[in-house]
Amino acid sequence: MQDGSHLESKRRPGGRTARNRAAVLDATLAELVEHGYAETSMEKIAMRAGVATSTVYRRWTNLEGVIQDLAHRFADDAGVPNGGESFPDSGDLETDLRALAGAFLTIYAHVAQRVWLDVMVAAAVRDPAARETLSAVVASRIRETSLLVRRAIDRGEVPADTDAEEVIRMVAAPFYYRMLVTAEPIDSALADRVAAMAAHAARAGILVRRATPPEQ
Amino acid sequence: MQDGSHLESKRRPGGRTARNRAAVLDATLAELVEHGYAETSMEKIAMRAGVATSTVYRRWTNLEGVIQDLAHRFADDAGVPNGGESFPDSGDLETDLRALAGAFLTIYAHVAQRVWLDVMVAAAVRDPAARETLSAVVASRIRETSLLVRRAIDRGEVPADTDAEEVIRMVAAPFYYRMLVTAEPIDSALADRVAAMAAHAARAGILVRRATPPEQ
Repeated sequence: MQDGSHLESKRRPGGRTARNRAAVLDATLAELVEHGYAETSMEKIAMRAGVATSTVYRRWTNLEGVIQDLAHRFADDAGVPNGGESFPDSGDLETDLRALAGAFLTIYAHVAQRVWLDVMVAAAVRDPAARETLSAVVASRIRETSLLVRRAIDRGEVPADTDAEEVIRMVAAPFYYRMLVTAEPIDSALADRVAAMAAHAARAGILVRRATPPEQ
Repeated sequence: MQDGSHLESKRRPGGRTARNRAAVLDATLAELVEHGYAETSMEKIAMRAGVATSTVYRRWTNLEGVIQDLAHRFADDAGVPNGGESFPDSGDLETDLRALAGAFLTIYAHVAQRVWLDVMVAAAVRDPAARETLSAVVASRIRETSLLVRRAIDRGEVPADTDAEEVIRMVAAPFYYRMLVTAEPIDSALADRVAAMAAHAARAGILVRRATPPEQ
């Protein structure tokens, strides 16, 4: 395993609660990188972060909760929207999806996030608990960002029965595919291409909630 | 590590060369599953298969060659085209892509193939040699299957500067994304949806070789 100490974040502003959160998330990433998912526990995270185990359980409930929050921090750092007002709203789905894909680029350029994803994917292929945590974290991000698509539905830009989360998945999939499988470049041309492809497919009624695409 | 013995293939027809190939590929899969990529070697494969190490080197050159051939066997078993005549040729890109995506479904339903992919992806996230082997195997499949798209170019169904391999990647990515990241269902509705999406994007000139998509 690599040494995770270089992954610790810069000092963040805020009071004791914010400092504790930062310390716990840094400790979680370092434990994951150094010891893998299977060996990471709430107790070891608390010890490494120098906070009481009860504090960690109170705030995050379980390991999945801490890892979810870690993924949120990566997204916040990359400027990926995670709340209603912070979403781009250009009035055009393709433009909004391009902004989202651009934020993916920032996340994937972030060493700590890449390391986190590598650890989680490697664990997920053989550990159902890790698989469940990874898919829960990703599902939560997809749910949040699908607001972009629901707005396009409200505007009438795409059919009312568009599967908003499926549109986001189609934007995300080529990034993960390149990162985990083909090792091909992840760049702004890719972001433009997937945003255009997903927006076209949504407008053409291909990404609707029914099981089969419409006749053409 | 799991026990790979149940993954050995049924007895295949053919002469001694075919039997040797089958034994070597079975042994490769079993070694990968039981000991992981880093511990798998040409020598251990030959010993397990009961053939001379020199035979293995002569036919496959190196570990990447054996793993590539193993992936070919999975594809052959699933009916994925890997030679000019065996490709579907309906005269319509979306129909051909749907047939290809349907073959992906068969591959992904194949336990041995899933195990192989899991082993390779888990190894790739921390081992550059495994990463290179995985991406070489996938790149080779993409190159071969992109014939479907080159035929659509020749027919004038999609723009002449369409990036044929990128169309195939856009079909493949959602399958890998679900398998490795979101753990969501992989079914024929997905195959239909990605085939329609990629064909639409190709026809709209979104998947061309230039770095940026055309103005709309």
